[in-house]
Amino acid sequence: MKTRRSDRLVDMTRYLIEHPRTLVSLTKFARQYDSAKSSISEDLAILKRTFWQNGVGVLETVPGAAGGARFTPVTRLDDAKIFVDGLVNEISDETRVLPGGYVYLSDLLGQPWILQKIGRLIATQYLKEPIDAVMTAATKGVPVAQAVASALNVPFVIARNDTKVTEGPTMSVNYVTGQAKRLEKMELSRRSLPMGSRVLIVDDFMKAGGTIRGMEALIKEFEGTVAGVAVVVEGEVQRRVIDEYTSLVHVNTDKEGGLLDVRVGNFSEKIYAQHPELTTPMD
Amino acid sequence: MKTRRSDRLVDMTRYLIEHPRTLVSLTKFARQYDSAKSSISEDLAILKRTFWQNGVGVLETVPGAAGGARFTPVTRLDDAKIFVDGLVNEISDETRVLPGGYVYLSDLLGQPWILQKIGRLIATQYLKEPIDAVMTAATKGVPVAQAVASALNVPFVIARNDTKVTEGPTMSVNYVTGQAKRLEKMELSRRSLPMGSRVLIVDDFMKAGGTIRGMEALIKEFEGTVAGVAVVVEGEVQRRVIDEYTSLVHVNTDKEGGLLDVRVGNFSEKIYAQHPELTTPMD
Repeated sequence: MKTRRSDRLVDMTRYLIEHPRTLVSLTKFARQYDSAKSSISEDLAILKRTFWQNGVGVLETVPGAAGGARFTPVTRLDDAKIFVDGLVNEISDETRVLPGGYVYLSDLLGQPWILQKIGRLIATQYLKEPIDAVMTAATKGVPVAQAVASALNVPFVIARNDTKVTEGPTMSVNYVTGQAKRLEKMELSRRSLPMGSRVLIVDDFMKAGGTIRGMEALIKEFEGTVAGVAVVVEGEVQRRVIDEYTSLVHVNTDKEGGLLDVRVGNFSEKIYAQHPELTTPMD
Repeated sequence: MKTRRSDRLVDMTRYLIEHPRTLVSLTKFARQYDSAKSSISEDLAILKRTFWQNGVGVLETVPGAAGGARFTPVTRLDDAKIFVDGLVNEISDETRVLPGGYVYLSDLLGQPWILQKIGRLIATQYLKEPIDAVMTAATKGVPVAQAVASALNVPFVIARNDTKVTEGPTMSVNYVTGQAKRLEKMELSRRSLPMGSRVLIVDDFMKAGGTIRGMEALIKEFEGTVAGVAVVVEGEVQRRVIDEYTSLVHVNTDKEGGLLDVRVGNFSEKIYAQHPELTTPMD
Protein backbone atom coordinates (compact mmCIF):
# COMPACT_ATOMS: atom_id res chain seq x y z
CA MET A 1 0.00 0.00 0.00
CA LYS A 2 1.26 3.44 -0.93
CA THR A 3 2.53 5.25 2.14
CA ARG A 4 1.52 8.82 2.88
CA ARG A 5 4.20 11.50 2.71
CA SER A 6 3.94 12.27 6.42
CA ASP A 7 4.51 8.62 7.34
CA ARG A 8 7.40 8.33 4.89
CA LEU A 9 9.09 11.41 6.34
CA VAL A 10 8.92 10.00 9.88
CA ASP A 11 10.21 6.58 8.91
CA MET A 12 12.93 7.84 6.54
CA THR A 13 14.19 10.20 9.26
CA ARG A 14 14.39 7.32 11.72
CA TYR A 15 16.07 5.02 9.20
CA LEU A 16 18.70 7.51 8.05
CA ILE A 17 19.59 8.53 11.62
CA GLU A 18 20.05 4.87 12.52
CA HIS A 19 22.27 4.25 9.47
CA PRO A 20 24.72 7.17 9.43
CA ARG A 21 27.31 7.48 6.65
CA THR A 22 25.59 4.78 4.61
CA LEU A 23 24.31 5.28 1.06
CA VAL A 24 20.66 4.23 1.04
CA SER A 25 19.29 3.74 -2.46
CA LEU A 26 16.22 5.53 -3.77
CA THR A 27 15.03 2.13 -4.95
CA LYS A 28 14.98 0.77 -1.41
CA PHE A 29 12.83 3.63 -0.15
CA ALA A 30 10.59 3.57 -3.24
CA ARG A 31 9.90 -0.15 -2.81
CA GLN A 32 9.45 0.00 0.93
CA TYR A 33 6.88 2.79 0.76
CA ASP A 34 5.41 1.74 -2.58
CA SER A 35 6.03 5.25 -3.85
CA ALA A 36 7.48 6.81 -7.00
CA LYS A 37 11.17 7.73 -6.93
CA SER A 38 10.18 11.30 -7.72
CA SER A 39 8.14 11.41 -4.49
CA ILE A 40 11.05 9.95 -2.53
CA SER A 41 13.35 12.59 -4.03
CA GLU A 42 10.98 15.31 -2.84
CA ASP A 43 10.94 13.73 0.64
CA LEU A 44 14.74 13.68 0.72
CA ALA A 45 14.83 17.38 -0.17
CA ILE A 46 12.67 18.09 2.90
CA LEU A 47 14.91 15.94 5.11
CA LYS A 48 18.05 17.58 3.76
CA ARG A 49 16.75 21.09 4.47
CA THR A 50 15.46 20.20 7.93
CA PHE A 51 18.60 18.34 9.04
CA TRP A 52 20.79 21.22 7.91
CA GLN A 53 18.61 23.98 9.36
CA ASN A 54 18.56 22.24 12.73
CA GLY A 55 22.30 21.57 12.75
CA VAL A 56 21.73 17.82 12.92
CA GLY A 57 23.65 16.62 9.91
CA VAL A 58 24.35 16.69 6.21
CA LEU A 59 22.16 14.70 3.84
CA GLU A 60 23.95 14.13 0.53
CA THR A 61 21.66 13.11 -2.25
CA VAL A 62 23.13 11.24 -5.17
CA PRO A 63 20.95 11.69 -8.28
CA GLY A 64 20.26 9.14 -11.00
CA ALA A 65 19.06 5.57 -11.25
CA ALA A 66 21.78 4.30 -8.90
CA GLY A 67 21.23 7.30 -6.65
CA GLY A 68 20.31 7.55 -3.02
CA ALA A 69 20.97 9.47 0.15
CA ARG A 70 23.70 9.43 2.76
CA PHE A 71 23.19 11.01 6.17
CA THR A 72 26.26 12.20 8.08
CA PRO A 73 25.62 13.52 11.58
CA VAL A 74 27.56 16.67 12.44
CA THR A 75 27.89 19.06 15.32
CA ARG A 76 28.01 22.74 14.42
CA LEU A 77 30.63 24.91 16.12
CA ASP A 78 28.11 26.91 18.14
CA ASP A 79 26.50 23.74 19.52
CA ALA A 80 29.96 22.25 20.17
CA LYS A 81 31.00 25.31 22.17
CA ILE A 82 27.91 25.14 24.38
CA PHE A 83 28.46 21.43 24.97
CA VAL A 84 32.20 21.68 25.72
CA ASP A 85 31.64 24.70 27.98
CA GLY A 86 29.27 22.46 29.92
CA LEU A 87 31.94 19.76 30.20
CA VAL A 88 34.54 22.30 31.35
CA ASN A 89 32.09 23.49 33.98
CA GLU A 90 31.39 19.94 35.21
CA ILE A 91 35.08 19.06 35.35
CA SER A 92 36.01 22.28 37.19
CA ASP A 93 35.58 20.58 40.56
CA GLU A 94 38.46 20.07 42.99
CA THR A 95 37.03 16.74 44.18
CA ARG A 96 37.55 15.22 40.72
CA VAL A 97 41.32 15.36 41.00
CA LEU A 98 42.76 11.99 42.02
CA PRO A 99 46.27 11.10 43.16
CA GLY A 100 48.75 11.27 40.28
CA GLY A 101 46.98 14.12 38.51
CA TYR A 102 44.21 11.93 37.10
CA VAL A 103 40.73 13.32 36.83
CA TYR A 104 37.56 11.39 37.72
CA LEU A 105 35.37 11.28 34.60
CA SER A 106 33.45 7.99 34.99
CA ASP A 107 30.18 9.66 35.98
CA LEU A 108 30.21 11.89 32.89
CA LEU A 109 31.37 9.05 30.60
CA GLY A 110 28.59 6.83 31.96
CA GLN A 111 25.84 9.13 30.64
CA PRO A 112 24.59 8.00 27.23
CA TRP A 113 23.54 11.50 26.15
CA ILE A 114 26.99 12.96 26.93
CA LEU A 115 28.69 10.09 25.10
CA GLN A 116 26.44 10.57 22.09
CA LYS A 117 27.39 14.25 21.89
CA ILE A 118 31.10 13.45 22.32
CA GLY A 119 30.85 10.80 19.60
CA ARG A 120 29.19 13.12 17.10
CA LEU A 121 31.57 15.97 17.86
CA ILE A 122 34.72 13.87 17.37
CA ALA A 123 33.22 12.25 14.25
CA THR A 124 32.56 15.70 12.76
CA GLN A 125 36.30 16.12 12.14
CA TYR A 126 36.16 13.11 9.80
CA LEU A 127 33.02 14.23 8.00
CA LYS A 128 34.61 13.75 4.58
CA GLU A 129 37.24 11.14 5.37
CA PRO A 130 36.93 7.38 5.32
CA ILE A 131 37.52 5.66 8.68
CA ASP A 132 37.49 1.86 8.93
CA ALA A 133 37.63 1.40 12.70
CA VAL A 134 38.00 3.19 16.02
CA MET A 135 40.60 1.99 18.54
CA THR A 136 40.95 2.62 22.25
CA ALA A 137 42.82 1.18 25.23
CA ALA A 138 40.97 -0.77 27.94
CA THR A 139 39.10 0.10 30.00
CA LYS A 140 38.13 3.73 30.45
CA GLY A 141 38.30 4.58 26.77
CA VAL A 142 35.72 1.97 25.77
CA PRO A 143 32.56 4.11 26.13
CA VAL A 144 34.18 6.93 24.14
CA ALA A 145 35.24 4.50 21.40
CA GLN A 146 31.75 3.04 21.22
CA ALA A 147 30.21 6.52 20.95
CA VAL A 148 32.57 7.66 18.19
CA ALA A 149 32.23 4.36 16.32
CA SER A 150 28.48 4.68 16.55
CA ALA A 151 28.54 8.17 14.99
CA LEU A 152 30.91 6.93 12.26
CA ASN A 153 29.02 3.63 11.87
CA VAL A 154 32.22 1.55 11.98
CA PRO A 155 33.47 -1.13 14.42
CA PHE A 156 35.61 -0.30 17.45
CA VAL A 157 38.47 -2.40 18.82
CA ILE A 158 39.99 -2.47 22.30
CA ALA A 159 43.74 -2.75 22.96
CA ARG A 160 44.50 -4.37 26.33
CA ASN A 161 47.34 -4.35 28.80
CA ASP A 162 46.27 -7.57 30.46
CA THR A 163 46.24 -10.90 28.68
CA LYS A 164 42.70 -12.16 28.78
CA VAL A 165 42.09 -15.76 27.90
CA THR A 166 38.87 -14.73 26.15
CA GLU A 167 40.53 -12.81 23.34
CA GLY A 168 41.97 -15.66 21.31
CA PRO A 169 45.17 -15.11 19.30
CA THR A 170 46.55 -11.58 19.69
CA MET A 171 49.17 -9.32 18.16
CA SER A 172 51.20 -7.36 20.71
CA VAL A 173 53.65 -4.48 20.91
CA ASN A 174 55.89 -3.11 23.62
CA TYR A 175 55.79 0.61 24.28
CA VAL A 176 57.24 3.10 26.72
CA THR A 177 54.80 4.99 28.92
CA GLY A 178 54.89 8.74 28.43
CA GLN A 179 55.86 10.02 31.85
CA ALA A 180 57.19 7.20 34.01
CA LYS A 181 59.08 5.71 31.02
CA ARG A 182 58.10 2.19 32.03
CA LEU A 183 58.09 -0.54 29.42
CA GLU A 184 54.59 -1.91 28.88
CA LYS A 185 52.92 -4.41 26.60
CA MET A 186 49.70 -3.83 24.73
CA GLU A 187 47.82 -6.32 22.63
CA LEU A 188 44.88 -6.63 20.32
CA SER A 189 42.93 -9.67 19.24
CA ARG A 190 44.05 -10.72 15.74
CA ARG A 191 40.53 -11.21 14.46
CA SER A 192 39.19 -7.89 15.73
CA LEU A 193 40.93 -5.67 13.14
CA PRO A 194 41.47 -6.39 9.42
CA MET A 195 45.01 -5.73 8.17
CA GLY A 196 45.51 -2.36 6.48
CA SER A 197 42.65 -0.49 8.19
CA ARG A 198 42.42 3.29 8.55
CA VAL A 199 42.03 3.68 12.29
CA LEU A 200 40.94 6.59 14.47
CA ILE A 201 42.46 6.42 17.98
CA VAL A 202 40.34 7.77 20.84
CA ASP A 203 40.68 7.83 24.62
CA ASP A 204 39.03 9.42 27.61
CA PHE A 205 42.17 10.99 29.09
CA MET A 206 45.65 11.66 27.76
CA LYS A 207 48.66 12.82 29.71
CA ALA A 208 52.02 12.50 27.94
CA GLY A 209 50.46 10.23 25.32
CA GLY A 210 52.40 6.98 25.91
CA THR A 211 49.29 4.81 25.62
CA ILE A 212 48.39 6.49 22.36
CA ARG A 213 51.88 5.92 21.03
CA GLY A 214 51.43 2.26 21.98
CA MET A 215 48.21 2.12 19.96
CA GLU A 216 49.97 3.76 17.01
CA ALA A 217 52.59 1.00 17.15
CA LEU A 218 49.85 -1.60 17.29
CA ILE A 219 48.12 -0.15 14.22
CA LYS A 220 51.44 -0.24 12.36
CA GLU A 221 51.75 -3.92 13.31
CA PHE A 222 48.35 -4.47 11.68
CA GLU A 223 49.73 -2.62 8.60
CA GLY A 224 47.12 0.08 9.14
CA THR A 225 47.10 3.88 9.04
CA VAL A 226 46.40 6.23 11.94
CA ALA A 227 43.61 8.45 10.64
CA GLY A 228 43.70 10.66 13.74
CA VAL A 229 43.85 10.88 17.53
CA ALA A 230 41.09 12.38 19.67
CA VAL A 231 40.71 12.51 23.45
CA VAL A 232 37.99 13.89 25.69
CA VAL A 233 40.40 15.40 28.23
CA GLU A 234 44.10 16.19 27.88
CA GLY A 235 46.14 16.78 30.99
CA GLU A 236 48.83 19.46 31.03
CA VAL A 237 52.30 17.86 30.81
CA GLN A 238 55.85 19.13 30.38
CA ARG A 239 56.47 17.12 27.29
CA ARG A 240 54.07 15.18 25.11
CA VAL A 241 55.23 12.19 23.08
CA ILE A 242 52.69 12.71 20.28
CA ASP A 243 52.14 15.84 18.19
CA GLU A 244 48.81 15.65 16.44
CA TYR A 245 45.63 15.20 18.43
CA THR A 246 42.25 16.74 19.08
CA SER A 247 41.07 17.39 22.65
CA LEU A 248 37.76 18.69 23.93
CA VAL A 249 38.92 19.76 27.40
CA HIS A 250 42.35 20.75 28.77
CA VAL A 251 43.06 20.19 32.48
CA ASN A 252 46.01 21.39 34.51
CA THR A 253 46.58 19.83 37.93
CA ASP A 254 49.45 20.13 40.36
CA LYS A 255 51.26 17.22 41.97
CA GLU A 256 49.42 17.78 45.25
CA GLY A 257 46.06 17.10 43.61
CA GLY A 258 45.01 20.70 43.23
CA LEU A 259 43.07 21.78 40.15
CA LEU A 260 44.94 24.68 38.61
CA ASP A 261 42.94 25.27 35.49
CA VAL A 262 40.25 23.68 33.33
CA ARG A 263 39.63 25.13 29.87
CA VAL A 264 38.46 24.10 26.42
CA GLY A 265 40.89 21.96 24.42
CA ASN A 266 42.00 22.52 20.86
CA PHE A 267 38.83 21.12 19.25
CA SER A 268 37.62 24.30 17.59
CA GLU A 269 40.69 24.67 15.36
CA LYS A 270 41.21 20.92 14.88
CA ILE A 271 37.64 19.94 14.06
CA TYR A 272 36.39 23.04 12.27
CA ALA A 273 39.41 24.30 10.29
CA GLN A 274 38.42 22.02 7.40
CA HIS A 275 34.68 22.63 7.77
CA PRO A 276 33.97 26.39 7.61
CA GLU A 277 30.35 25.64 6.63
CA LEU A 278 29.77 24.44 10.19
CA THR A 279 31.12 27.57 11.85
CA THR A 280 28.61 30.20 10.75
CA PRO A 281 26.05 31.01 13.44
CA MET A 282 22.64 29.42 13.03
CA ASP A 283 19.65 31.63 12.20
CA MET B 1 8.66 31.64 11.94
CA LYS B 2 5.97 28.99 11.83
CA THR B 3 7.44 25.66 10.77
CA ARG B 4 5.80 23.55 8.10
CA ARG B 5 4.28 20.23 9.12
CA SER B 6 6.77 18.23 7.05
CA ASP B 7 9.72 19.93 8.73
CA ARG B 8 8.17 19.49 12.16
CA LEU B 9 7.64 15.77 11.56
CA VAL B 10 11.29 15.26 10.60
CA ASP B 11 12.66 17.21 13.53
CA MET B 12 10.24 15.79 16.12
CA THR B 13 11.11 12.25 14.98
CA ARG B 14 14.80 12.97 15.40
CA TYR B 15 14.30 14.64 18.78
CA LEU B 16 12.11 11.90 20.26
CA ILE B 17 14.43 9.11 19.04
CA GLU B 18 17.37 10.92 20.67
CA HIS B 19 15.48 11.35 23.95
CA PRO B 20 13.92 7.94 24.65
CA ARG B 21 11.71 7.40 27.71
CA THR B 22 11.56 11.14 28.36
CA LEU B 23 8.33 13.13 28.58
CA VAL B 24 8.64 16.02 26.14
CA SER B 25 6.03 18.72 26.69
CA LEU B 26 3.67 19.91 23.99
CA THR B 27 4.65 23.42 25.03
CA LYS B 28 8.29 22.82 24.13
CA PHE B 29 7.40 21.63 20.64
CA ALA B 30 4.80 24.36 20.15
CA ARG B 31 7.30 27.08 21.05
CA GLN B 32 10.15 25.60 19.09
CA TYR B 33 8.14 25.33 15.88
CA ASP B 34 5.99 28.39 16.54
CA SER B 35 2.92 26.23 16.02
CA ALA B 36 -0.40 25.69 17.78
CA LYS B 37 -0.59 22.85 20.29
CA SER B 38 -3.43 21.38 18.24
CA SER B 39 -1.08 21.09 15.25
CA ILE B 40 1.59 19.49 17.42
CA SER B 41 -0.98 17.00 18.70
CA GLU B 42 -1.85 16.06 15.13
CA ASP B 43 1.86 15.62 14.37
CA LEU B 44 2.26 13.36 17.38
CA ALA B 45 -0.64 11.19 16.20
CA ILE B 46 1.21 10.66 12.90
CA LEU B 47 4.44 9.80 14.73
CA LYS B 48 2.63 7.41 17.06
CA ARG B 49 1.01 5.52 14.19
CA THR B 50 4.21 5.36 12.14
CA PHE B 51 6.45 4.26 15.01
CA TRP B 52 4.00 1.52 15.94
CA GLN B 53 3.36 0.32 12.39
CA ASN B 54 7.08 0.04 11.74
CA GLY B 55 7.79 -1.75 15.02
CA VAL B 56 10.11 1.04 16.14
CA GLY B 57 8.58 2.02 19.44
CA VAL B 58 5.64 3.19 21.49
CA LEU B 59 4.76 6.87 21.59
CA GLU B 60 2.59 7.62 24.61
CA THR B 61 0.79 10.92 24.36
CA VAL B 62 -0.31 12.59 27.57
CA PRO B 63 -3.22 14.97 26.90
CA GLY B 64 -3.93 18.28 28.59
CA ALA B 65 -2.10 21.50 29.34
CA ALA B 66 0.76 19.68 31.08
CA GLY B 67 0.72 17.01 28.40
CA GLY B 68 3.37 15.79 26.08
CA ALA B 69 4.81 12.73 24.45
CA ARG B 70 7.14 9.96 25.58
CA PHE B 71 8.89 7.70 23.07
CA THR B 72 9.95 4.24 24.21
CA PRO B 73 11.91 2.18 21.69
CA VAL B 74 10.88 -1.47 21.51
CA THR B 75 11.78 -4.54 19.53
CA ARG B 76 8.87 -6.68 18.38
CA LEU B 77 9.16 -10.44 18.82
CA ASP B 78 9.37 -11.18 15.10
CA ASP B 79 12.23 -8.69 14.65
CA ALA B 80 13.92 -10.04 17.78
CA LYS B 81 13.78 -13.59 16.45
CA ILE B 82 15.40 -12.61 13.15
CA PHE B 83 18.12 -10.71 14.98
CA VAL B 84 18.87 -13.44 17.56
CA ASP B 85 18.84 -16.13 14.85
CA GLY B 86 21.52 -14.06 13.14
CA LEU B 87 23.57 -13.98 16.36
CA VAL B 88 23.18 -17.74 16.84
CA ASN B 89 24.38 -18.23 13.29
CA GLU B 90 27.41 -15.96 13.79
CA ILE B 91 28.34 -17.64 17.07
CA SER B 92 27.99 -21.17 15.62
CA ASP B 93 31.65 -21.23 14.64
CA GLU B 94 34.14 -23.68 16.17
CA THR B 95 36.95 -21.12 16.02
CA ARG B 96 35.13 -18.90 18.52
CA VAL B 97 35.58 -21.35 21.36
CA LEU B 98 38.51 -20.40 23.58
CA PRO B 99 40.24 -22.39 26.31
CA GLY B 100 38.03 -22.72 29.40
CA GLY B 101 34.80 -22.82 27.44
CA TYR B 102 34.74 -19.08 26.77
CA VAL B 103 33.42 -17.80 23.49
CA TYR B 104 35.00 -15.02 21.45
CA LEU B 105 32.41 -12.25 21.03
CA SER B 106 34.53 -9.08 20.78
CA ASP B 107 34.06 -8.69 17.03
CA LEU B 108 30.26 -8.83 17.34
CA LEU B 109 30.22 -6.62 20.44
CA GLY B 110 32.41 -4.07 18.64
CA GLN B 111 29.76 -3.40 15.97
CA PRO B 112 27.61 -0.38 16.87
CA TRP B 113 24.58 -1.64 14.94
CA ILE B 114 24.61 -5.02 16.74
CA LEU B 115 25.00 -3.30 20.10
CA GLN B 116 22.13 -0.97 19.31
CA LYS B 117 19.85 -3.91 18.55
CA ILE B 118 20.97 -5.77 21.69
CA GLY B 119 20.35 -2.64 23.77
CA ARG B 120 16.84 -2.11 22.46
CA LEU B 121 15.94 -5.77 22.79
CA ILE B 122 17.05 -6.01 26.43
CA ALA B 123 15.41 -2.66 27.22
CA THR B 124 12.11 -3.94 25.78
CA GLN B 125 11.66 -6.18 28.84
CA TYR B 126 11.57 -3.03 31.02
CA LEU B 127 9.22 -1.13 28.75
CA LYS B 128 6.89 -0.25 31.62
CA GLU B 129 9.32 -0.41 34.55
CA PRO B 130 11.49 2.33 35.97
CA ILE B 131 15.24 1.65 35.82
CA ASP B 132 17.70 4.10 37.38
CA ALA B 133 20.99 2.66 36.15
CA VAL B 134 22.62 -0.22 34.29
CA MET B 135 25.55 -2.07 35.88
CA THR B 136 28.16 -4.34 34.35
CA ALA B 137 31.55 -5.80 35.27
CA ALA B 138 34.72 -4.59 33.53
CA THR B 139 35.71 -4.99 30.83
CA LYS B 140 33.82 -7.03 28.27
CA GLY B 141 30.38 -6.07 29.52
CA VAL B 142 30.94 -2.34 29.02
CA PRO B 143 29.70 -2.05 25.41
CA VAL B 144 26.55 -4.03 26.29
CA ALA B 145 25.90 -1.82 29.32
CA GLN B 146 26.34 1.31 27.25
CA ALA B 147 23.93 0.02 24.60
CA VAL B 148 21.23 -0.94 27.11
CA ALA B 149 21.69 2.30 29.05
CA SER B 150 21.37 4.23 25.82
CA ALA B 151 18.05 2.54 24.98
CA LEU B 152 16.80 3.16 28.54
CA ASN B 153 18.30 6.67 28.64
CA VAL B 154 19.89 6.11 32.06
CA PRO B 155 23.54 6.09 33.23
CA PHE B 156 25.65 2.93 33.34
CA VAL B 157 28.21 2.01 35.99
CA ILE B 158 31.17 -0.38 35.81
CA ALA B 159 32.15 -2.70 38.66
CA ARG B 160 35.87 -3.56 38.60
CA ASN B 161 38.07 -6.36 39.87
CA ASP B 162 41.23 -4.30 39.76
CA THR B 163 41.80 -1.26 41.92
CA LYS B 164 42.30 1.64 39.61
CA VAL B 165 43.71 4.79 41.07
CA THR B 166 41.48 6.83 38.78
CA GLU B 167 38.20 5.79 40.38
CA GLY B 168 38.38 7.76 43.62
CA PRO B 169 36.71 6.36 46.74
CA THR B 170 35.03 3.00 46.14
CA MET B 171 32.67 0.57 47.86
CA SER B 172 33.70 -3.06 47.57
CA VAL B 173 32.34 -6.56 48.19
CA ASN B 174 33.88 -9.99 48.26
CA TYR B 175 32.19 -12.71 46.28
CA VAL B 176 32.77 -16.33 45.34
CA THR B 177 33.20 -17.12 41.65
CA GLY B 178 30.58 -19.46 40.28
CA GLN B 179 32.63 -22.41 39.08
CA ALA B 180 36.15 -22.25 40.50
CA LYS B 181 34.80 -21.07 43.90
CA ARG B 182 37.61 -18.55 44.21
CA LEU B 183 37.18 -15.57 46.50
CA GLU B 184 37.26 -12.34 44.51
CA LYS B 185 36.79 -8.67 45.23
CA MET B 186 34.68 -6.32 43.17
CA GLU B 187 34.34 -2.61 43.63
CA LEU B 188 32.45 0.38 42.36
CA SER B 189 33.24 4.07 42.59
CA ARG B 190 31.16 5.66 45.38
CA ARG B 191 30.15 8.63 43.31
CA SER B 192 29.09 6.64 40.25
CA LEU B 193 25.82 5.26 41.72
CA PRO B 194 23.33 7.04 43.98
CA MET B 195 22.21 5.04 47.03
CA GLY B 196 18.90 3.23 46.65
CA SER B 197 18.93 2.92 42.84
CA ARG B 198 16.93 0.36 40.85
CA VAL B 199 19.68 -1.30 38.83
CA LEU B 200 19.59 -3.57 35.78
CA ILE B 201 22.61 -5.90 35.64
CA VAL B 202 23.92 -6.81 32.18
CA ASP B 203 26.92 -8.72 30.87
CA ASP B 204 28.24 -10.12 27.63
CA PHE B 205 28.73 -13.69 28.84
CA MET B 206 27.55 -15.65 31.87
CA LYS B 207 28.65 -19.07 32.98
CA ALA B 208 27.70 -20.06 36.53
CA GLY B 209 26.83 -16.46 37.36
CA GLY B 210 29.39 -15.70 40.09
CA THR B 211 30.21 -12.27 38.68
CA ILE B 212 26.54 -11.43 38.55
CA ARG B 213 26.09 -12.53 42.15
CA GLY B 214 29.00 -10.22 42.99
CA MET B 215 27.20 -7.33 41.32
CA GLU B 216 24.02 -8.17 43.21
CA ALA B 217 25.98 -7.95 46.47
CA LEU B 218 27.44 -4.63 45.37
CA ILE B 219 23.98 -3.22 44.59
CA LYS B 220 22.81 -4.31 48.05
CA GLU B 221 25.78 -2.45 49.54
CA PHE B 222 24.54 0.65 47.72
CA GLU B 223 21.09 -0.04 49.27
CA GLY B 224 19.70 -0.55 45.79
CA THR B 225 17.36 -3.03 44.13
CA VAL B 226 18.22 -5.47 41.34
CA ALA B 227 15.63 -4.72 38.67
CA GLY B 228 16.79 -7.62 36.50
CA VAL B 229 19.70 -9.53 34.97
CA ALA B 230 20.30 -9.83 31.22
CA VAL B 231 23.20 -11.36 29.31
CA VAL B 232 23.95 -11.65 25.62
CA VAL B 233 25.28 -15.22 25.84
CA GLU B 234 24.81 -17.82 28.58
CA GLY B 235 27.13 -20.79 28.67
CA GLU B 236 25.78 -24.20 29.64
CA VAL B 237 26.82 -25.11 33.20
CA GLN B 238 26.01 -27.89 35.64
CA ARG B 239 24.79 -25.55 38.30
CA ARG B 240 24.01 -21.86 38.13
CA VAL B 241 24.26 -19.65 41.21
CA ILE B 242 21.51 -17.25 40.09
CA ASP B 243 17.93 -18.08 39.12
CA GLU B 244 16.39 -15.21 37.28
CA TYR B 245 17.99 -13.88 34.12
CA THR B 246 17.32 -13.20 30.47
CA SER B 247 19.69 -14.49 27.77
CA LEU B 248 19.68 -13.97 24.05
CA VAL B 249 21.89 -16.90 23.08
CA HIS B 250 22.68 -20.22 24.82
CA VAL B 251 26.03 -21.90 24.12
CA ASN B 252 27.18 -25.36 25.11
CA THR B 253 30.89 -26.15 24.84
CA ASP B 254 32.87 -29.14 26.01
CA LYS B 255 36.06 -28.93 28.08
CA GLU B 256 38.21 -29.65 25.02
CA GLY B 257 37.05 -26.49 23.29
CA GLY B 258 34.49 -28.12 21.03
CA LEU B 259 31.24 -26.33 20.26
CA LEU B 260 28.42 -28.72 21.10
CA ASP B 261 25.41 -26.55 20.54
CA VAL B 262 24.40 -22.92 19.97
CA ARG B 263 20.72 -22.03 20.27
CA VAL B 264 18.48 -19.12 21.19
CA GLY B 265 18.37 -18.25 24.89
CA ASN B 266 15.26 -17.71 27.01
CA PHE B 267 14.56 -14.18 25.75
CA SER B 268 11.26 -14.85 24.06
CA GLU B 269 9.49 -15.95 27.26
CA LYS B 270 11.38 -13.52 29.52
CA ILE B 271 11.03 -10.39 27.44
CA TYR B 272 7.64 -10.93 25.82
CA ALA B 273 5.56 -12.70 28.49
CA GLN B 274 4.52 -9.31 29.88
CA HIS B 275 4.16 -7.65 26.47
CA PRO B 276 1.75 -9.67 24.29
CA GLU B 277 1.10 -6.59 22.16
CA LEU B 278 4.63 -7.00 20.77
CA THR B 279 4.20 -10.63 19.76
CA THR B 280 1.54 -10.40 17.05
CA PRO B 281 3.02 -10.61 13.55
CA MET B 282 3.38 -7.32 11.67
CA ASP B 283 1.16 -6.64 8.66
